[in-house]
Amino acid sequence: MDFPARAIGRVESGLTDPEAAPKQGREGAPAAWIAFEPDVLEGLDSIRPGDRVVLLTWLDRARRDVLSVHPRDDPSNPLTGVFSTRSADRPNPIGLHEVEVLARDGARLHVQPLEALDGTPVLDLKPVLGPA
Amino acid sequence: MDFPARAIGRVESGLTDPEAAPKQGREGAPAAWIAFEPDVLEGLDSIRPGDRVVLLTWLDRARRDVLSVHPRDDPSNPLTGVFSTRSADRPNPIGLHEVEVLARDGARLHVQPLEALDGTPVLDLKPVLGPA
Repeated sequence: MDFPARAIGRVESGLTDPEAAPKQGREGAPAAWIAFEPDVLEGLDSIRPGDRVVLLTWLDRARRDVLSVHPRDDPSNPLTGVFSTRSADRPNPIGLHEVEVLARDGARLHVQPLEALDGTPVLDLKPVLGPA
Repeated sequence: MDFPARAIGRVESGLTDPEAAPKQGREGAPAAWIAFEPDVLEGLDSIRPGDRVVLLTWLDRARRDVLSVHPRDDPSNPLTGVFSTRSADRPNPIGLHEVEVLARDGARLHVQPLEALDGTPVLDLKPVLGPA
């Protein structure tokens, strides 16, 4: 059974080369803009600079038929089930990115750090939950 | 543009009443089982009891046309854009649940705590990233 996820926005980033992009935001990823669809802007009304949010993306250049990988694309790492890795290749290629909101400009949010490639569809953002 | 997310498994839980379910796992949610589809089991090969994982679900009983809510369903809380809340009602009703793996029994994983309702489709699991 399929569930139709929709793009609520897109990443605008200088990262365009999958080979050169960092694997995780904390690994030197740059700031990027998220351009949102007009019909979801009301949902952003309470977002403020300084907010820490989890951005969910649909990694549209990933493979969905991969169940085991060598972590970090390093053949010397043993083959590992994808659900124990952050590989983009997996049955549902959803990316999780913890970012800080730097600024808002109309329908766009500036966030950092973000390792997602330019054009990546955005599915959701949620506040980071603090320690329990 | 839509992206077809697929159920890789389902939640098996004693939680069946949306009104009675905790809003977050840390709020007294019980342990639950996840029953996985046979064709994704290879992806679980490296999961071990004690692992901390982020479970992604499709909250199939949520409303997708809601952009503002009173947080925690409390009318005394001011109306807030859904992207600043963990409301299930949002354009893409994807739930994030940080859980500990307690055990594996064949195609099922026992995890806790999980506030998702019985039958909720599971989209993904990923390792929790440690502190940077």
